[in-house]
Amino acid sequence: MQRRQFIKTLGVGAAAGATAPFIATASAQETITWDMVTSWPKNFPALGTGANDFAARIERMSGGRMKIRVHGAGELVPALEVFDAVGEGTAELGHSASYYWRGKTLAAQFFTAVPFGMTTTETNAWLYHGGGQELWDEEYAKYNLKPFPVGNTGTQMAGWFKKEINSLDDMQGLKLRLPGLAGEAMNRIGVTTVNTPGSEIFTSLQTGVLDAADWVGPYNDLAFGLHQVAQYYYTSAWNEPSAVLEGMVNLDAWNALPDDLKAVVSEAAMASNLAMTSEFAVRNAEALETLVDEHGVELRTFPEEVLVALHDAARQVLAEQVEKDEASRRVYDSYTVFQRKVRRFTDVGEFAYLKTRERVGA
Amino acid sequence: MQRRQFIKTLGVGAAAGATAPFIATASAQETITWDMVTSWPKNFPALGTGANDFAARIERMSGGRMKIRVHGAGELVPALEVFDAVGEGTAELGHSASYYWRGKTLAAQFFTAVPFGMTTTETNAWLYHGGGQELWDEEYAKYNLKPFPVGNTGTQMAGWFKKEINSLDDMQGLKLRLPGLAGEAMNRIGVTTVNTPGSEIFTSLQTGVLDAADWVGPYNDLAFGLHQVAQYYYTSAWNEPSAVLEGMVNLDAWNALPDDLKAVVSEAAMASNLAMTSEFAVRNAEALETLVDEHGVELRTFPEEVLVALHDAARQVLAEQVEKDEASRRVYDSYTVFQRKVRRFTDVGEFAYLKTRERVGA
Repeated sequence: MQRRQFIKTLGVGAAAGATAPFIATASAQETITWDMVTSWPKNFPALGTGANDFAARIERMSGGRMKIRVHGAGELVPALEVFDAVGEGTAELGHSASYYWRGKTLAAQFFTAVPFGMTTTETNAWLYHGGGQELWDEEYAKYNLKPFPVGNTGTQMAGWFKKEINSLDDMQGLKLRLPGLAGEAMNRIGVTTVNTPGSEIFTSLQTGVLDAADWVGPYNDLAFGLHQVAQYYYTSAWNEPSAVLEGMVNLDAWNALPDDLKAVVSEAAMASNLAMTSEFAVRNAEALETLVDEHGVELRTFPEEVLVALHDAARQVLAEQVEKDEASRRVYDSYTVFQRKVRRFTDVGEFAYLKTRERVGA
Repeated sequence: MQRRQFIKTLGVGAAAGATAPFIATASAQETITWDMVTSWPKNFPALGTGANDFAARIERMSGGRMKIRVHGAGELVPALEVFDAVGEGTAELGHSASYYWRGKTLAAQFFTAVPFGMTTTETNAWLYHGGGQELWDEEYAKYNLKPFPVGNTGTQMAGWFKKEINSLDDMQGLKLRLPGLAGEAMNRIGVTTVNTPGSEIFTSLQTGVLDAADWVGPYNDLAFGLHQVAQYYYTSAWNEPSAVLEGMVNLDAWNALPDDLKAVVSEAAMASNLAMTSEFAVRNAEALETLVDEHGVELRTFPEEVLVALHDAARQVLAEQVEKDEASRRVYDSYTVFQRKVRRFTDVGEFAYLKTRERVGA
């Protein structure tokens, strides 16, 4: 899910009348009112409601000392102006995903998702205990922002296909909706990727403009009805094995907060992170059950030669990016070194357990 | 890690002089000082430090309105009197694991770990979005307690063995340190389990009193030096695929808190939960690297016939428990129905991705 669908769906210019509000210098007594701008339609499942949830946690803990006004995309600023709006102080708080800001900072995308990268638990370990947060702070400080992880979609899916993929040949010339680094990797193995707006995926599949499309995962995909226009649902999420949602605070507003309210915002972010991960786990499971049991959707995985080709292509795309951007190199080096380390225990722990559970049918 | 080692290690009677402190009726202005009693030695890696971390989060967010005095096991009350001490108001807050309280409430153990049960993410989904917390609240309210998840060890290991296990026959007559439901399951397949105190595992393996022992996972096991007395380190953690740490609040103290401080305690618990999970992921990975690369430890998994036998035995043990205890049945029914539902997406999402990553060597 990326840039263009929001521009298209939510329109530009909605923020024409927005002006920079007062950034409060807080004391323990006064009420601080913050605006939160988001990249999601108001109450959008899991993401928009996740923004509401983050705001509510801050308000509950602050005992009325902080009030957060949550704005859907396009209400105060358009979806893809959240980064600038918060950095400039038009709003104090933003809720979005860092890979939308590739045009401003290439390094930012590593804080959302990396093809063939880390799982949700591994990513959190990197952010909270592996130096990831510090690198993110450093990168965003250049834009007058303080970032936090505030959620994660968990493992996504690889997308909807109208025909079965049994070889690399079957991928040639396919028109696939898949944005970002993963889309670039797909292009290199012979697929033609496009960045169809989310709201147009259904129609584009139906009319044959698209042969295949990736959106998010079962919960969000079912809501779009994609099972009605494509029969094969592909796993695994080589493209987004986890995807971090970000909260960002205007750095002046952040620095003006007293220590206890800094802690309130920071802990609310961490609690929201776990809450969203937990919610996606159950909602995706429920939606998958509906898709397979009620709608007869066919689950598939790509053949090994496709996955190997995608892995090679993704490594090339990433290597080229870090080659030309020093900040990307620093973040990616930290990310890859950490992934190599942490996955040893993922494999011996969680992965080994999942194999056991499968073997005994638990 | 269970009951007896704490009784043994930390002694009884340490709490003889403890008296019930004042349970504050809070207003927004006064300072509330709470005692937190724990089942861990002060600063015990990840668990004791996790208790400190939980307390620190509450203090930071409350801006000095709450002060938490953290006590190691045996300082104010012994490790295994935490449940009673908090219920009776000797302390307002406790940090422990619910399966220690089997003697009081059989149903409690489902809130820590279930053999062949749910992973960390699945368990959190059940607790936060699947009715698990409500059942836990209901069960603990009978004992004047309000419980929270405040951490998770993540996937554990299956233990250290002095000889390789190549068949069910190889398990016969082994003397294995493994407490709880998992220990009962092991007994039914021909193993003799004992509940050796943690501090005695090393010597018992060395002298041949034990042939094998399960403790926690690489981080805590390395600290005990178990690799020096047993060569084979077994995965997967069929016994504890995840293990929830609990925070518990005296219900009178909880009810006396103003709403904002209730939110502070509750959100601190949730943030601590994610922090501990993330910390174990990286510490276990680092320790595993040391164990395998520096100490030449051999990683193994049980043969399929052993796992199948353990699965059958564990189901029997669980069935017998829920048969005789109505509260256990309600909790276990909720747990198992949820596990069946949520694992469908675990398998298609995370598990499928881990298989892909293994296949391409990412």
